[in-house]
Amino acid sequence: MRALKYGVTRDHVLGLEAVLPGGEVIRAGSRCHKDVCGLDLTRLLVGSEGSLAVITEAVLKLLPLPEASASLLAGFGDLERALAGAGAVFRAGLLPSALEFMDSGVLGALEKARAKSGGEVPWPKATGACLLFKLDGSRAAVGAEIERLREALADSAPTFVKLGTDQEGEEALWDLRRMISPAMHLVAPNKSNDDVAVPRGRVAEAVARYKAIGRERGVGVYCFGHLGDGNIHVDIMYDESDPAQAEAAPQAKKEILRASVEMGGTLTGEHGVGQVKTPYLGMQLGPAERGLMARVKAAFDPSGILNPGKAL
Amino acid sequence: MRALKYGVTRDHVLGLEAVLPGGEVIRAGSRCHKDVCGLDLTRLLVGSEGSLAVITEAVLKLLPLPEASASLLAGFGDLERALAGAGAVFRAGLLPSALEFMDSGVLGALEKARAKSGGEVPWPKATGACLLFKLDGSRAAVGAEIERLREALADSAPTFVKLGTDQEGEEALWDLRRMISPAMHLVAPNKSNDDVAVPRGRVAEAVARYKAIGRERGVGVYCFGHLGDGNIHVDIMYDESDPAQAEAAPQAKKEILRASVEMGGTLTGEHGVGQVKTPYLGMQLGPAERGLMARVKAAFDPSGILNPGKAL
Repeated sequence: MRALKYGVTRDHVLGLEAVLPGGEVIRAGSRCHKDVCGLDLTRLLVGSEGSLAVITEAVLKLLPLPEASASLLAGFGDLERALAGAGAVFRAGLLPSALEFMDSGVLGALEKARAKSGGEVPWPKATGACLLFKLDGSRAAVGAEIERLREALADSAPTFVKLGTDQEGEEALWDLRRMISPAMHLVAPNKSNDDVAVPRGRVAEAVARYKAIGRERGVGVYCFGHLGDGNIHVDIMYDESDPAQAEAAPQAKKEILRASVEMGGTLTGEHGVGQVKTPYLGMQLGPAERGLMARVKAAFDPSGILNPGKAL
Repeated sequence: MRALKYGVTRDHVLGLEAVLPGGEVIRAGSRCHKDVCGLDLTRLLVGSEGSLAVITEAVLKLLPLPEASASLLAGFGDLERALAGAGAVFRAGLLPSALEFMDSGVLGALEKARAKSGGEVPWPKATGACLLFKLDGSRAAVGAEIERLREALADSAPTFVKLGTDQEGEEALWDLRRMISPAMHLVAPNKSNDDVAVPRGRVAEAVARYKAIGRERGVGVYCFGHLGDGNIHVDIMYDESDPAQAEAAPQAKKEILRASVEMGGTLTGEHGVGQVKTPYLGMQLGPAERGLMARVKAAFDPSGILNPGKAL
């Protein structure tokens, strides 16, 4: 979730030891933060899902733990206003360490989950979307930035703002985020979930398209996730025992993947390809890219014995 | 210079368009901050020095410009004390956007350059090494962190501390850093320079070894550069018209490269391999790694027509 400020995992992998299928041991990168000697096999191996070599050692870059952090949950009348608020935050020059969003359907699922456990949600009825921010850094910075964050959101007329400035207060807000996945099962028995991503400026359009696909196909589409980097978790909620819905869910999934790629996005922001997404790879990668990836794989694994049929 | 806080260039390249030698156009990555669809050809192409494909388009990740910055130049009795000071800064949880060091020889060259132009250097005579820090972030953060930085350095008994808190003040400090390369020509007519890197914890040992190599070979060795990420610029200063020095300089270079690799470092932190360093590649990359890189190159460029004899 902190990729927005800190970059993704591969940005923190400095070096690797790996074993090629024939047993040959290679070292890529080093313990240096900067190392441009030869091709960057380190980053090529990260995220290769076991298709190139068996990684046996990793050297990771560490960052100092921030001195302080604070979180802020804000509600808005609808997702468009929430996204306008997020845009104002970036224009103010703030770089949160995390920025999550929840659409109205997700808020409804959380309301059900809280009601079931006898609790309450912090947002008033008029709330159609929420943003959850985390800021971290030196104590002085966090104190000043949380005020600038509030100011930046003011123009989007938040329905409420709730601040968490100590561990307990922050955890209370992030508990809501962590409740989403289990709560979704209260709206329908079956889930088909995705982790597509689109360029940040197209998140509003993407969510609207995904929901339209759900309406057309007759299944529920719920969106939440990492707004800051455009990585959207899309949950298709349906009832497998209803033949129409059972048929519609995989169709909706396919259309959501296709729409993501059409918007300049990707089939997978963080979870990878594995077995589930190999049938869809052709939506994003053309024959030139797939041919090249197959040749690169053959450079590592000429007999194709590593994780065959997956990832590529 | 800001890689310490912000990561290296390749961490900011989200997507690329490139043309393979046969004319086929490929797209790697996308406009998304997170995209793990297939192999990471984007990072493989970055830093490949034209050996794999011709890059025709790049999508870069941008960060908000920090609201404020401040710089601090501090002198120490010797390099060991300067490095102890830098260690204390990291232990205090501070992450400067840049952290440069200059050894005593470099300070001497700067003194000569300033004297020539009728100016003065800011450090007192007892100074054997300097550290130059830059902090950036929100105004409140920079103000608080610069004080914590001063405190962290106090135990290493700085010979002086000079602060730059506005553009003019900061530039005056960074002018000294920018003067280093031209100033080196005042100590000897010829220069053979390198950009080796070692793990940050071994910079003191590395500088001591490089200087010992210079003394043994009878050429001057001057060290400065990006202490924060262990990337050291090593200038071998000599007189080409003296046959003994002309022979010693390339020997010293070779020994400095070998020592860097022995310390877990790299032949090149940022400038790459090109033509100059291909003869030394075998010091860092073994036959397994070089064979693999050659096969990866062949996957892109089967006829070997792209930048032949360079980079790999």
